[in-house]
Amino acid sequence: MERLAEQLAFMMEIDRLKGIVRRSWVLGGQRRENSAEHSWHVALMALLLCEHADLPIDPGRVVSILLVHDLVEIDAGDTFIYDVSARRTKATKERCAAERIFGILPADDAARLREFWEEYEARATAEAKMAHAVDRLMPLLHNFHTQGRAWQEHGIIRSQVIEANRHIGDASARLWTYAKSLIDRAVELGYLAAL
Amino acid sequence: MERLAEQLAFMMEIDRLKGIVRRSWVLGGQRRENSAEHSWHVALMALLLCEHADLPIDPGRVVSILLVHDLVEIDAGDTFIYDVSARRTKATKERCAAERIFGILPADDAARLREFWEEYEARATAEAKMAHAVDRLMPLLHNFHTQGRAWQEHGIIRSQVIEANRHIGDASARLWTYAKSLIDRAVELGYLAAL
Repeated sequence: MERLAEQLAFMMEIDRLKGIVRRSWVLGGQRRENSAEHSWHVALMALLLCEHADLPIDPGRVVSILLVHDLVEIDAGDTFIYDVSARRTKATKERCAAERIFGILPADDAARLREFWEEYEARATAEAKMAHAVDRLMPLLHNFHTQGRAWQEHGIIRSQVIEANRHIGDASARLWTYAKSLIDRAVELGYLAAL
Repeated sequence: MERLAEQLAFMMEIDRLKGIVRRSWVLGGQRRENSAEHSWHVALMALLLCEHADLPIDPGRVVSILLVHDLVEIDAGDTFIYDVSARRTKATKERCAAERIFGILPADDAARLREFWEEYEARATAEAKMAHAVDRLMPLLHNFHTQGRAWQEHGIIRSQVIEANRHIGDASARLWTYAKSLIDRAVELGYLAAL
């Protein structure tokens, strides 16, 4: 029962991910999305898109990685992918966050969930690469389907989008081909600046 | 590429789950939670709590079930567990919703994801029973940690909470013992009416 109490204390602590606001807008455009609902969205997307991976992968592991990948934002906040200076201090802040947040769990659970996060960060396994690909593709889709709203708000241009998203190709040539065509179409439609 | 386009059209359609508001409050109490972030929260909880199941189960399947279990709410809305009259028409509305929403997918994906939802609804497998247990335990915890806010707003009393949550015991005697002690403590603290 003590073990269960620790697991549930962790579950209540991570409720705070629902209050971490991202740059992307929900598709109706009423509000920005939060990292908890984003985590659900990408985990479910992994159930569908793992079939497009270049290498054989374990979809269940990709889902687990995506369920925990943003938890560190509870302490470290969401770092905008195009904010170069914030990305420099991101790693240290997120490491401290992982220590505290996973530390609420019983030791074996802490190690198990933290391993998913470390795997995501290291981006070395096929599963971690696919988790990153899905996590990158989703905001591209959100930007496209909100007429480039977050891109325009932050003055993002095509070359930045290509650079930030090319890792999609590390997991799946097909997904990267699709992403590039979406980016080109966004430029054509005036959602994204061409330079 | 056509297959991928159908999968992504589905992913964009289900973004609307982020706009389905539940009765439960986020723990800070700023707002009610939505069904997308709730789905993330319970899917992650399943990664931890499956070890408490009375029977051996596949945690990955419980996670998949929970990722899709609320999708039908996009068309059918969230039905409050204590709203007896709404629960009568719930099944028909949700079945129509499943037809439309899963139908956006390529046929094999539609069948696969719909099977998770059908399994959840039928509540016959050990995995579906655990998915229900986690899905019931979460609002109990939210109510407890917001001093019974949603219970009080809707005039819910102890006997209703016991009745609505006893299915937790179908998956795990330990989780149900814990849940009952939480309910008793909520009554002691004045969060929940005793009658």
